[in-house]
Amino acid sequence: MEISKPTLIIDRQKCLENISFMAEKAKKHQLHFRPHFKTHQLKTIGELYSKQGVTAITASSVSMASQFAGYGWKDITIAFPVNINEINEINFLTEKINLNLIADNISSFDFLSRNLLSNTGIFIEIDTGHHRSGVRWDDFGLIDELVNFLSASSKLQFKGFLTHSGHSYTATSKEEITSIQQETIRKTSTLKERYLKNHPSLIISTGDTPCCSLCDDFNSVDEIRPGNFVFYDVMQFYLGTCQTADIAVTVACPVVSLNHERNELVVYCGAIHLSKESVVDDKGRRIFGLVTEIDEDGWSEPIEDTYVSALSQEHGIIKTSSEILKKIKIGDIIGILPVHSCLAVHQLKGSPIYIN
Amino acid sequence: MEISKPTLIIDRQKCLENISFMAEKAKKHQLHFRPHFKTHQLKTIGELYSKQGVTAITASSVSMASQFAGYGWKDITIAFPVNINEINEINFLTEKINLNLIADNISSFDFLSRNLLSNTGIFIEIDTGHHRSGVRWDDFGLIDELVNFLSASSKLQFKGFLTHSGHSYTATSKEEITSIQQETIRKTSTLKERYLKNHPSLIISTGDTPCCSLCDDFNSVDEIRPGNFVFYDVMQFYLGTCQTADIAVTVACPVVSLNHERNELVVYCGAIHLSKESVVDDKGRRIFGLVTEIDEDGWSEPIEDTYVSALSQEHGIIKTSSEILKKIKIGDIIGILPVHSCLAVHQLKGSPIYIN
Repeated sequence: MEISKPTLIIDRQKCLENISFMAEKAKKHQLHFRPHFKTHQLKTIGELYSKQGVTAITASSVSMASQFAGYGWKDITIAFPVNINEINEINFLTEKINLNLIADNISSFDFLSRNLLSNTGIFIEIDTGHHRSGVRWDDFGLIDELVNFLSASSKLQFKGFLTHSGHSYTATSKEEITSIQQETIRKTSTLKERYLKNHPSLIISTGDTPCCSLCDDFNSVDEIRPGNFVFYDVMQFYLGTCQTADIAVTVACPVVSLNHERNELVVYCGAIHLSKESVVDDKGRRIFGLVTEIDEDGWSEPIEDTYVSALSQEHGIIKTSSEILKKIKIGDIIGILPVHSCLAVHQLKGSPIYIN
Repeated sequence: MEISKPTLIIDRQKCLENISFMAEKAKKHQLHFRPHFKTHQLKTIGELYSKQGVTAITASSVSMASQFAGYGWKDITIAFPVNINEINEINFLTEKINLNLIADNISSFDFLSRNLLSNTGIFIEIDTGHHRSGVRWDDFGLIDELVNFLSASSKLQFKGFLTHSGHSYTATSKEEITSIQQETIRKTSTLKERYLKNHPSLIISTGDTPCCSLCDDFNSVDEIRPGNFVFYDVMQFYLGTCQTADIAVTVACPVVSLNHERNELVVYCGAIHLSKESVVDDKGRRIFGLVTEIDEDGWSEPIEDTYVSALSQEHGIIKTSSEILKKIKIGDIIGILPVHSCLAVHQLKGSPIYIN
């Protein structure tokens, strides 16, 4: 492996295992599997999904939906509140593929009904506890109004309710993640019961990686849209939703400085490669990545007591032990497991290396 | 201004004023001005510097140095510990331009002396308190060894000592920044005195934006390399090194969701646009950006009690007051002043819009 600068390494076999795991889970619970492609944004990873029978996907922007439409994907939900300023690109897409959009307000739906050129699927975004976007799940007055608006529109095809329980990412235990899933089910079940009679084909779409990975009760849910699980990352490991062996990406980077007084080394791999996402471990240490050995065949388990302790634009600072540091030389290539694979992969997706 | 997605807006006039300010300061103190180009990475901003007489620049990677060599810059210091794995690209550069490299260890210098094809300027990187990379300023044993190694080499031309007092970015007062500058001067003066007799042309190169912006004592320093000041940002404003009116970049972004219960809005502008850099304000609030009105001519001062409170991949969550929120509509374009312009600009530099 000829590495001269920070390089994303993707273990295809691990990706396939992660995809299989989630596809099997969806099948077992009779859930439509619409994986989120924002984590990888890569044609090659899309093809791995394709081989496992996936035909419908989720994107987080009009640009990303356009990218994957260009690769031949024909059924895409943009799970981000519709940006009406991109109506031209949206109209271009709706002519070519089955597109679903989401919103949480009449203003957006009204704009779409007046400006969309083709029929388009619409989900009402529901807030079941994440408090980012979406209508509060029990604001039935507003939900009635939105459902009625959609029902009266010929172009906007009401598909159902979509939610993202993203607060599962800040949970502190498996029990808390399970409890979030239970809440999501309870709230979306109420909605389903309320509207199913008049809209018998409506679906409930949900699916963050923590809940989809750990939980086995999906009840009223019809569709899941997890994304992160294809690579997982250090954050998911600390959440308990994966093992470090499941993490399918690492960033290979060169060692440029060693400090034996502080038991630190500096690598060429900074915030513009890993992003500044961090987690705090059980010893209270802020961690920007875990460190592995790496060679042609793959990478090791994380090296004990060794972690990325700080990042500047291009520098990564790694704290380690004197024993480990003695074995490392200037110019060596080491691997860094990212804290948040979605953000690191976004920055490094230009020229990944695939192994296995 | 036709904005449909998160877009970097650069106020050329503010950049020019920021460049003038720093160029004048360098002139007044008889300092060589070698601005760091990692903050902007843009050909157009390079041209603004060029018009103000700048001929020598700083880059933070071999790739960035190659980019600016391609734009015609002939004198570049890569102020990042030399990455020996990029020796081929380095040799390509040294044939075309005057290149300076930095390192803090014999291993890197030994590799360079055996593998460089052309004469190359070399700075010994010194740690005066930042504790990222560099030889501890008073480790005279190692510094002697490095200076002697360089003196004995025909290819490696010893240029002097380079330091980056990056701990000024985490200072909590102007007094602390001044005190960091005094420490940098004291330590580099000691080095200069020790080695100047045998190396009469050696220079001291320093220059982080906080110290260069606020301080007026440069004493032993010969060259400054600040970068951030060309744009400044919210972090620098909170440090007290600039006013909000000096910030020369904003990110224009569309409003996609409004929440009147929580006095929040959601914009299409997330961690992949702004980066996850944050500051904590004097009320203890974690801030990922300040919010402005924006039109064709520029942007307003930050809107009171309004700030980016959270970021996910594509979502920015803005907290505001009910009065402000009433005036904002779905589809409006607002401006976000980034917390760290270097990281935000890195992500958005693909298609900036220049005003003024």
